[in-house]
Amino acid sequence: MDFRLDSRLAADTFVVGDLGLCRALLMNDSRFPWLILVPRRDSLSEIHDLAAPERAILVEEAAMAGESLKSLTGAKKINVAALGNVVPQLHVHVVARFEDDPAWPGPVWGSGAAVAYEPQAAARLIADLRRALSLNGGD
Amino acid sequence: MDFRLDSRLAADTFVVGDLGLCRALLMNDSRFPWLILVPRRDSLSEIHDLAAPERAILVEEAAMAGESLKSLTGAKKINVAALGNVVPQLHVHVVARFEDDPAWPGPVWGSGAAVAYEPQAAARLIADLRRALSLNGGD
Repeated sequence: MDFRLDSRLAADTFVVGDLGLCRALLMNDSRFPWLILVPRRDSLSEIHDLAAPERAILVEEAAMAGESLKSLTGAKKINVAALGNVVPQLHVHVVARFEDDPAWPGPVWGSGAAVAYEPQAAARLIADLRRALSLNGGD
Repeated sequence: MDFRLDSRLAADTFVVGDLGLCRALLMNDSRFPWLILVPRRDSLSEIHDLAAPERAILVEEAAMAGESLKSLTGAKKINVAALGNVVPQLHVHVVARFEDDPAWPGPVWGSGAAVAYEPQAAARLIADLRRALSLNGGD
């Protein structure tokens, strides 16, 4: 399978694990619990570039990620988005939002600088996410 | 079928027509060619609130809307998003983006005030969209 993760996505995230279609990443921004799902396919930019059966898998994985984030964090709302204006590789943001988060009710994209996780906090959240997403390798 | 469109969505948009699952609306903001898809189901807020078979339809309708907008407008990128921080009724934004649009490469949400369409321009775009989306009633 030809798949190479965009270097900017790799630099900004931790790997959570591989779902059926997507690699699940945790954005290294402790202001917002924020997953990014990247279909493990090359040369895709738009949702309509994916084959229809894979689109159905993508939306199921996004729904599962959103439901997991909401139940883990108690978020008020989940934001799901495929933008790609800066990084064209198709990727879907799944972000847990709170009425007291620093961007509410605006979007998280472009709203100030990321605040990196403390290593232990990142490790704990990744382990919780792996369990919630039924991924192996939780520690 | 119990379905009532949120009054804020109704106030900001023109009706394009009903797809299999969603009501397709055109945002009355001439800065960005911008569709909003609203599943005609009541009491849904999150993508994971929809039943899985309807999620598959939702993503197909979003893909079709995005492909139509891209081919009608020659956009550089399509942005697809379900946010709902302000209007909780589940709705999906499908926005055609251009490198010279007033928000590029940032998100459209919260980026300045909408600029209403001239009536003839809105009517023309709605007719084009109805044709592209195979909806009846194009004028």
